[in-house]
Amino acid sequence: MGIKIGILGLGTVGAGTVQLLLDNVGRHPLLKEVEICRVGVKSLDKPRTVELPVGIITTDLEAIVTDPQIDIIVELIGGIDRARELILKAIANGKHVVTANKAVISRFGAEIFTAANQAGVYVMLEAAVGGGIPVIQPLKQSLSVNRINTVMGIVNGTTNYILTRMQTEGSSFDDVLADAQQLGYAEADPTADVEGWDAADKIAILASLAFGGRINRDEVFSEGIRQVSKTDISYADKLGFVIKLLAIAKRCSPVSPSSTPTLSVRVHPTFVPKTHPLASINGVYNAILVEGEPLGQVMFFGPGAGAGATASAVSSDILNLVAHLKSRQNSDTNSHLDPLLACSHQDYCQIAPVSELEARFYARFLTRDQSGVIGKLGTCFGKYGVSLESVVQTGFQGELAEIVVVTHDVQEGKFKQALDEIRTFEAIHSIPSLLRVI
Amino acid sequence: MGIKIGILGLGTVGAGTVQLLLDNVGRHPLLKEVEICRVGVKSLDKPRTVELPVGIITTDLEAIVTDPQIDIIVELIGGIDRARELILKAIANGKHVVTANKAVISRFGAEIFTAANQAGVYVMLEAAVGGGIPVIQPLKQSLSVNRINTVMGIVNGTTNYILTRMQTEGSSFDDVLADAQQLGYAEADPTADVEGWDAADKIAILASLAFGGRINRDEVFSEGIRQVSKTDISYADKLGFVIKLLAIAKRCSPVSPSSTPTLSVRVHPTFVPKTHPLASINGVYNAILVEGEPLGQVMFFGPGAGAGATASAVSSDILNLVAHLKSRQNSDTNSHLDPLLACSHQDYCQIAPVSELEARFYARFLTRDQSGVIGKLGTCFGKYGVSLESVVQTGFQGELAEIVVVTHDVQEGKFKQALDEIRTFEAIHSIPSLLRVI
Repeated sequence: MGIKIGILGLGTVGAGTVQLLLDNVGRHPLLKEVEICRVGVKSLDKPRTVELPVGIITTDLEAIVTDPQIDIIVELIGGIDRARELILKAIANGKHVVTANKAVISRFGAEIFTAANQAGVYVMLEAAVGGGIPVIQPLKQSLSVNRINTVMGIVNGTTNYILTRMQTEGSSFDDVLADAQQLGYAEADPTADVEGWDAADKIAILASLAFGGRINRDEVFSEGIRQVSKTDISYADKLGFVIKLLAIAKRCSPVSPSSTPTLSVRVHPTFVPKTHPLASINGVYNAILVEGEPLGQVMFFGPGAGAGATASAVSSDILNLVAHLKSRQNSDTNSHLDPLLACSHQDYCQIAPVSELEARFYARFLTRDQSGVIGKLGTCFGKYGVSLESVVQTGFQGELAEIVVVTHDVQEGKFKQALDEIRTFEAIHSIPSLLRVI
Repeated sequence: MGIKIGILGLGTVGAGTVQLLLDNVGRHPLLKEVEICRVGVKSLDKPRTVELPVGIITTDLEAIVTDPQIDIIVELIGGIDRARELILKAIANGKHVVTANKAVISRFGAEIFTAANQAGVYVMLEAAVGGGIPVIQPLKQSLSVNRINTVMGIVNGTTNYILTRMQTEGSSFDDVLADAQQLGYAEADPTADVEGWDAADKIAILASLAFGGRINRDEVFSEGIRQVSKTDISYADKLGFVIKLLAIAKRCSPVSPSSTPTLSVRVHPTFVPKTHPLASINGVYNAILVEGEPLGQVMFFGPGAGAGATASAVSSDILNLVAHLKSRQNSDTNSHLDPLLACSHQDYCQIAPVSELEARFYARFLTRDQSGVIGKLGTCFGKYGVSLESVVQTGFQGELAEIVVVTHDVQEGKFKQALDEIRTFEAIHSIPSLLRVI
């Protein structure tokens, strides 16, 4: 029996999610169990990038969240009040919920999760923070055996894009913002990003998961990047720092069995030492760093936004729910293993022989200083179809000249054949190094 | 009812795991359900860093894996034949298994998982790859909605440590290896690390999860780092590369619904462009990069080995199994939500006011060029207990001198009080920038 889902919203993320679910070859086999039942939109007339059978798309969102045959509601309409209302109604109707809506979860999480626990349903939110980076599930599960001391990260792509360009180009905030808006990296009204509100929503969610308590969103301090000047970025550089908008949640009180921790939770532009792992996260990328005992530091890095990344996160939540629902369906029978934890591989993958692979190579030759050695190397490589990126005579070792070759992508077998021939050349003393280039 | 576990092996990782499980305050509440029943060791006489009640430690490992009251066996003895035998016997006795043993899983995974599926038990292996980095679970779950094209990484800390030191110090392989052995970063017999066999075990496991098929360990190509010379490292540097031992698994065939993919799976020293995310992973750290459609690239970074990191990974597998077993125990009642997916936070965290937090600050002052301004600033900050790391006059803006101050960790409230007083100084024109330093 398939698992029936209803999707609210068919914007960029909604369309990306539908596309992923409809084109499931090469993905986790459980996704084949997913059946898109209804998709709710504002207007039926808008042109769509995905094709859905007639009758699936509707403007009646209430009818979707109350439809008795639907198991999972995927909320992708964004905004606050209407989204909250639909999520709560879905829960009241016994649906599991997947949402990418950080604003609703950070403000109304307490209400929503209380309702979900009472109704015995899950509310999943992998896409709410860090786009496609799997960070919510690790925080809920793998990492939670640690005592987390710090979660911090670059969780807003727009501001990181602006700061990165200010830094590399020496431009001013206003100029880069205007350009980012034209390129679609910043919204027409960029306030929520630029003032740090979006990052504050996200760190509230991360802190709640990392520290095992609810977070009052109003208490999250946030300071935006409007005040960051190119002068400061240039001084930061001279002092050995870069300026990043960091979202930070830290434990301030010692670990105690009896009380919830006291935290510092804040978003602000920050001087980050250039050697810090977060310093090199540039452009629209996000990264989240978690520090805990006994683990130490781990960092997650990836695309923080975009249709594909967010669809990946939304679909991973759907997959988790499908696994849960399927293992429940099977619980009368013997086979009640959760298919996500059990091994389902029966067949062996084909491994291609290394000689057939294309790769780039670096080779170092020691040659007797004869005229025309480089030409002979080039001719021989050419004979075997090995295309060279560079051939450089780099110096001497005693009486031998050292020549370094870097190839383009070549078939390893042909490259090795060429080398075998080259080894026979009078001018070639030896080939001390042969390494692959990524 | 508690979940009873038996641990095989009380070396570094075993002791770290016991320590974590016994000291569970501030960690996931489910860990309180774990009861360490038996711990199997080779010798009872060896001094131990963890204290366990009398009667828990035994040298009879068979008795542990066949003990009818034990739910989960945690295999941490390492090695191949004996570990395989005990894992299979545990499975035959209906136990779930947690293991950190990449050598056994990469060679006998097919046999072990077939047995586990038949017996209806799980074999969990988060600690087998990447130490404390949560990468196995994301590959099994979140990321598997993608069509994975590439998994690659730095998965052996010893060789990365050696290559990093060769690069920063210009030393030779033999010298760094000898030193690494003395410091405990390389084993007395470093063959498995240095020849790339350990990395080959790990990429075989990652490839199997990423591409959904079994991998024949014998077909994994591996080339070690013995041949990497300091000359090559220096040429790499000049050409814009660093040399890393990469483990790489790539899809070579198009995605098809009917067949398992053809892959390239290999380990070799590799020229990595300095701008590549893996180029900056240094020392004993590990990092794994996954590229898939529609996600794009994500990277996981963290400590690849060590007692704490590995204990974190082992315990996260135990946690997953406990959640599974507890939700099964409760399945007669209404409350059958998986506690790892549901929200269990009832209480609000305390958020400390920003003014009470300690932080480092950067402030930029525009001052009227009067003698002694820096002295006045210093005196005023001192009055409020604000300790300065540096005060530098950096230049002029028109007639105004620009002074940049970076503080040590100071209480934000006191720093702001000092600034309020400084603003009243005749010599101070303005404070255009005030930013936090991490």
